[in-house]
Amino acid sequence: MTPSPFSFDLLAQDGKARAGILHTPHGDIPTPIFAPVGTQATVKSLTQRHLEELDAKLVLANTYHLYLRPGEDLIAELGGLHQFMSWNGPILTDSGGFQVFSLSDMRKIDEDGATFKSHIDGSLHRFTPEKSIEIQEKLGADIIMAFDECADPNDRSYSESAMQRTHHWAERCKAAQTRKDQALFGIVQGGVFPELRETSAKFITALDFPGNAIGGLSVGETKAEMHAMLEVVNGILPADKPRYLMGVGTPNDLVECIRRGVDIFDCVLPTRLARHSAAMTETGRMNMMNAQYARDERPISETCTCYTCQHYSRAYIRHLVQAKEMLSGTLLSIHNIHTLLHLVRHLRQAILDGQFDEAARRYLSGFES
Amino acid sequence: MTPSPFSFDLLAQDGKARAGILHTPHGDIPTPIFAPVGTQATVKSLTQRHLEELDAKLVLANTYHLYLRPGEDLIAELGGLHQFMSWNGPILTDSGGFQVFSLSDMRKIDEDGATFKSHIDGSLHRFTPEKSIEIQEKLGADIIMAFDECADPNDRSYSESAMQRTHHWAERCKAAQTRKDQALFGIVQGGVFPELRETSAKFITALDFPGNAIGGLSVGETKAEMHAMLEVVNGILPADKPRYLMGVGTPNDLVECIRRGVDIFDCVLPTRLARHSAAMTETGRMNMMNAQYARDERPISETCTCYTCQHYSRAYIRHLVQAKEMLSGTLLSIHNIHTLLHLVRHLRQAILDGQFDEAARRYLSGFES
Repeated sequence: MTPSPFSFDLLAQDGKARAGILHTPHGDIPTPIFAPVGTQATVKSLTQRHLEELDAKLVLANTYHLYLRPGEDLIAELGGLHQFMSWNGPILTDSGGFQVFSLSDMRKIDEDGATFKSHIDGSLHRFTPEKSIEIQEKLGADIIMAFDECADPNDRSYSESAMQRTHHWAERCKAAQTRKDQALFGIVQGGVFPELRETSAKFITALDFPGNAIGGLSVGETKAEMHAMLEVVNGILPADKPRYLMGVGTPNDLVECIRRGVDIFDCVLPTRLARHSAAMTETGRMNMMNAQYARDERPISETCTCYTCQHYSRAYIRHLVQAKEMLSGTLLSIHNIHTLLHLVRHLRQAILDGQFDEAARRYLSGFES
Repeated sequence: MTPSPFSFDLLAQDGKARAGILHTPHGDIPTPIFAPVGTQATVKSLTQRHLEELDAKLVLANTYHLYLRPGEDLIAELGGLHQFMSWNGPILTDSGGFQVFSLSDMRKIDEDGATFKSHIDGSLHRFTPEKSIEIQEKLGADIIMAFDECADPNDRSYSESAMQRTHHWAERCKAAQTRKDQALFGIVQGGVFPELRETSAKFITALDFPGNAIGGLSVGETKAEMHAMLEVVNGILPADKPRYLMGVGTPNDLVECIRRGVDIFDCVLPTRLARHSAAMTETGRMNMMNAQYARDERPISETCTCYTCQHYSRAYIRHLVQAKEMLSGTLLSIHNIHTLLHLVRHLRQAILDGQFDEAARRYLSGFES
């Protein structure tokens, strides 16, 4: 048996916070890590050079979007996602499940899969666990995800049936996988219900995936509920495999979820906020449209080492925002992604140094330098 | 008397084509040169790092736009245009004249200046030669332009009166200049009428500006008329000062106008085409929306050395265009500006080698490698 190209080294643990390295065919991912989202095989407004300079270690792309346009066959024909988007580092694709379920009126779920209408042209499509794996194998990311159903987290009956379906689909995804150079992660569901989360974490753990994800959070529950679910789930998921919390989050979320044993995050927040003129900083968000920045010659953050902060003033960025110039989205995306990557690097070092609690406390109190 | 920080070295002439160096306080500009346009203090969609990597030697910014937003006082307060936009190379600002005259219904011209309505909020403003110089001195570009009137080039009577006004205004601009670290260029007008162009070239030459521009072309005349006017004007303008043809152009225009003794060009074409999905190449334009590129793994141009062509396929760029992703504008702007800068570098070397005619012939025949 060929050794797996994937392995996870847990280097240190401080409380429940973990520092590790996930080895993949396209390079090592130090954890905890935040993955910028490249929905349509592009992290919006950034060249891949920008991502390299940001030292992004993992980029996410969306199966639903790429399946619809340009299509997984075209990407496979052109050498796979890495070559297509000219990004030679690790890539993770989601299963398409979350996007399909988000279509609400435009989709119908049954035991075998989900039928949905394209948001582009209304055409009819169908995803099953097997289809999702087939698409993700053609896309060729390093980490691929099991097809799951993300329910309303506060609806117990729906959360339970969606969890059951997610479990059956996880088994089918595992059976459908043919490529050995991709790590398939299982997904824990169960809404805000500890007993469902416990059941789900045990079931998914038993399937022995090389990594495990926690789905269905950050979709309508309270922060306290999210934290409680993480504590239940991470108390069960194996310590020697990476844990991925999908669709999270804000800087505070990263701190609180790393504290509870999460290793991998992704979120559209930094690039979406950038397109809406907002800068993420260690002391909160700044709306760069505000008149108070019009004559402000300081960078967004005086301690930030990103390209944007090393070269541009708040006044210039405010001018770009006012003038509706595309460059504002690029400069703010660089800054926002840097802010999250800097945070996870900083917390990782604190974990290695056994100083996580102090680093977290200083960060959350807004006094981080 | 302090020596001027500006001087122009004419290094070689091949036919009427010229190769030189224009020295400015922010660096040397090898000529012939093409200047990308940064209308609102940003070359649309590009960071200043991109411009450095493209080896852009001169960037243009628009006085009309910057006067309206964010205002020349704000830019002066923040250290001037170079610092504001984080571009430490040479900058040229236009006088605002062309933009004001382009407002058609929203402006009124008299002997003393022009009154116009802002395209942003309809507010009323007035430019005079003195006001234009005052704004440009506050912006602080290396090269500034005299306030001129650009008439319909085919209307003889209007061309003559606009030329007379341009001459008076040129004298007033010269008298109004107070900064000695900016080179003020005069502008020749006269429509498509050789005798007016001759009069204008003589008048402007006599004012002894450190550089001279040719205005009112590429605004409605034929190519043959443009070439004929260049021949008249460049036969009169002094050989020891740089000649700037405003608002031109296409690759073919660059070849034909360099052939007729022009040294400096600017145009929004490469970035505007980029935002409309078009790639400029040595063999013509490519519409990257076209289905024929969907599976084409070649770069836009197989001989191009730009970042875009070194990293991305036609298929990927076509995908970005289809998906309306901002990155398509960035990647095509990089490629298009590179194409024009590569062309002027190539022609400059040909002039130095005494091979201009052959280089021009090969380029225009589409066989340039």
